[in-house]
Amino acid sequence: MAGEKDTALVVLSGGQDSTTCLYWAIDRFDTVATITFDYGQRHRIELDCAKRVAEFAGVENIIVPIDTFAALGGDALTDPDIEVQQGVDETTGLPNTFVPGRNLVFLTFAAAYAWQRSIGHLVTGVAQTDYSGYPDCRDGTITALQHTLRLGMESDITIHTPLMHLSKKETVELARDLGALPAMAHTHTCYNGKRPPCGECPACELRAKGFAEAGVEDPLLAA
Amino acid sequence: MAGEKDTALVVLSGGQDSTTCLYWAIDRFDTVATITFDYGQRHRIELDCAKRVAEFAGVENIIVPIDTFAALGGDALTDPDIEVQQGVDETTGLPNTFVPGRNLVFLTFAAAYAWQRSIGHLVTGVAQTDYSGYPDCRDGTITALQHTLRLGMESDITIHTPLMHLSKKETVELARDLGALPAMAHTHTCYNGKRPPCGECPACELRAKGFAEAGVEDPLLAA
Repeated sequence: MAGEKDTALVVLSGGQDSTTCLYWAIDRFDTVATITFDYGQRHRIELDCAKRVAEFAGVENIIVPIDTFAALGGDALTDPDIEVQQGVDETTGLPNTFVPGRNLVFLTFAAAYAWQRSIGHLVTGVAQTDYSGYPDCRDGTITALQHTLRLGMESDITIHTPLMHLSKKETVELARDLGALPAMAHTHTCYNGKRPPCGECPACELRAKGFAEAGVEDPLLAA
Repeated sequence: MAGEKDTALVVLSGGQDSTTCLYWAIDRFDTVATITFDYGQRHRIELDCAKRVAEFAGVENIIVPIDTFAALGGDALTDPDIEVQQGVDETTGLPNTFVPGRNLVFLTFAAAYAWQRSIGHLVTGVAQTDYSGYPDCRDGTITALQHTLRLGMESDITIHTPLMHLSKKETVELARDLGALPAMAHTHTCYNGKRPPCGECPACELRAKGFAEAGVEDPLLAA
């Protein structure tokens, strides 16, 4: 799919999944850059982790601000007055960490940045397996968005989602096979923003489960 | 299409087209609100015009910041170091006022705002006729985006584009028929940010042509 001279732009959050995607892209493309969004996320430590992962991997990283989600408010990820709940909201049927349109906006801005630099490939760590419950992480949504971006920017951009159908276990195995494990020491997953991670929130539990099932030690916990 | 209790959210730029759309929505929906994006546009006067148009029409207006386009840079609409050129750029085949993804981002954020308030209808003044040359204003792009937003937000949002296939002349006639002409005195069109308008830039010329062909006096010039 990718030729020798192809460049990919990886949406890097500083987490386990996007770090795995970064190494997937490094393995596959001639040149790789990363873009990270400063959208008012609850845990600013994510931005540091993204910077450190990119440095560790030896690729460019740009941090781009998005002040809009915080201005709109109303979700537990960007609104400090709202607590993260377990499960789904009764009215919306979605987790209260759902920021409507978040991934659509991230990928649209990433596509705009790519358009300006004639980059033809985006890579994102969204997955519809396991748990996310976020409709903007699903394969159908990403395919529809790719079509929209191609029309709206007159481009032939491709959105790659290497983790879309993988379980957490398989994602850990992929990271291992790609040599991405050392970089995992610099990633951030914990919903409570703790480093070392709290080990108790749903994100920590899911991460631990993936590593355990893959029979791999999490370098973040060994760090 | 719209029932009695339906609410519409109009993307209001403060220009002639979105003002016409506002009156179209008022005519058609039970409740109408407007959203305006402060995205670092060259002429801040547009924001004042949007506020004034909304006040004049007696509808709510929220101004939402987007600092991302200015951070990305590279286009003549948000980058003060780049001059607006006539015609299209040789490399991209698009006007150098093209902000990649601008309308996609506007409509995605508008949809997020609507989602939070259970508003099912968006209205935007994009048109593929006459001149724009912007691929994100075309019918196919908007239809693809609507599909993407529905999947990505699990909603049944509808994007209305009442001006999509109208010429500027027909847009003026529609504004007249909807009683929107008095509000036109508060709108802004001029690329040079002048008020009264410069009368010489492509935007002023196009507006003048539309009013002339419809045989209607432009209230902005009479003001």
